[in-house]
Amino acid sequence: MILHDNLVSGNGYKVRLLLTQLGIPFERIEYDTGRGETRTPGFLENIDPNGRIPVLETDDGEFLAESDAILFYLAEGTPFLPDGRLERARVLRWMFFEQYSHEPNIAVPRAWLHVYGLEMTEERRLALEAKRKLGRDALGVMEGHLTGKDFFVGGRYSVADIALYAYTHVAHEGGFDLADYPAVRAWIGRVAAQPGYIPITQA
Amino acid sequence: MILHDNLVSGNGYKVRLLLTQLGIPFERIEYDTGRGETRTPGFLENIDPNGRIPVLETDDGEFLAESDAILFYLAEGTPFLPDGRLERARVLRWMFFEQYSHEPNIAVPRAWLHVYGLEMTEERRLALEAKRKLGRDALGVMEGHLTGKDFFVGGRYSVADIALYAYTHVAHEGGFDLADYPAVRAWIGRVAAQPGYIPITQA
Repeated sequence: MILHDNLVSGNGYKVRLLLTQLGIPFERIEYDTGRGETRTPGFLENIDPNGRIPVLETDDGEFLAESDAILFYLAEGTPFLPDGRLERARVLRWMFFEQYSHEPNIAVPRAWLHVYGLEMTEERRLALEAKRKLGRDALGVMEGHLTGKDFFVGGRYSVADIALYAYTHVAHEGGFDLADYPAVRAWIGRVAAQPGYIPITQA
Repeated sequence: MILHDNLVSGNGYKVRLLLTQLGIPFERIEYDTGRGETRTPGFLENIDPNGRIPVLETDDGEFLAESDAILFYLAEGTPFLPDGRLERARVLRWMFFEQYSHEPNIAVPRAWLHVYGLEMTEERRLALEAKRKLGRDALGVMEGHLTGKDFFVGGRYSVADIALYAYTHVAHEGGFDLADYPAVRAWIGRVAAQPGYIPITQA
């Protein structure tokens, strides 16, 4: 398999982590998203019309975009996705929460500050403040859910945890302080202790 | 089943439409989101800690949040979700596209203008313009994909179409003009012609 990827991206990291934990060998092609390498006519035409990584290219030459769709695809039939219909839907529930309520508010400040080092105009400062508030709301939802639980769904490590871990464990790079979220911090420790764990910047 | 819902919501409509097309009877509980009825302590505690509708309450008293997770849950084992593993993942790919690239840019302007009738401050006007640009980008991705295709995945109507139809067919209520997207308009017609179709505001 080929992973069209960017090493600093948490969305790419989700897939690198799961592929590694599944023991699936893969080739990685790196794109500099800051220099527009995922918005070239060739990328839009052949890899993803939405101009984003990660994209998984299967051995049959099929392309699959959207990090959480790739996680679900790879995890089907493995211990990383529960068997029960309702539990599978709950995994998706947390993945959609991640992409709608979490990633835009926790990953984007990290991209602005840590990845691209954007200039802090007054407009961007206000936008950052709004995102920080929504990001803390998302962390609060996670804290409430994880209180008394080891993992997000069904009492065991699944792709729901991978999806939410990717940007939560580097939230400080976007200016978030996890001191107020002890259950989240304990869960971060449990995820990092899983067999086959790799850090975010490991290719 | 009970659907915790809001009649003007496209996210709620997705579930109403699929439940109707599946012939599953359901009770609907209406919440006035504009008056904060999904952010009360009782709602956050018992129904969804993220304070949003739709939430499906099953006959076993289980709660499932996130519109697209509910669609996937209800569609498993029915003709509304493909059997093949890659095709199922492609359905999810379009659902994640919907929640990340489409809904925040196409549904939110509709909410501001059509649902809540918010006052147009200069700050909101700028935000609206930014969302309109990203919304047109999302419509462009859909147009490219649908050109020469009847439906989003596997050549037939699925929950990927339901997820994307909900806010696309009312995009004009957020100020979008679909004249430049003929393949999208033709697909809207095909979705509206499906057996068991109901309009967005039908309970």
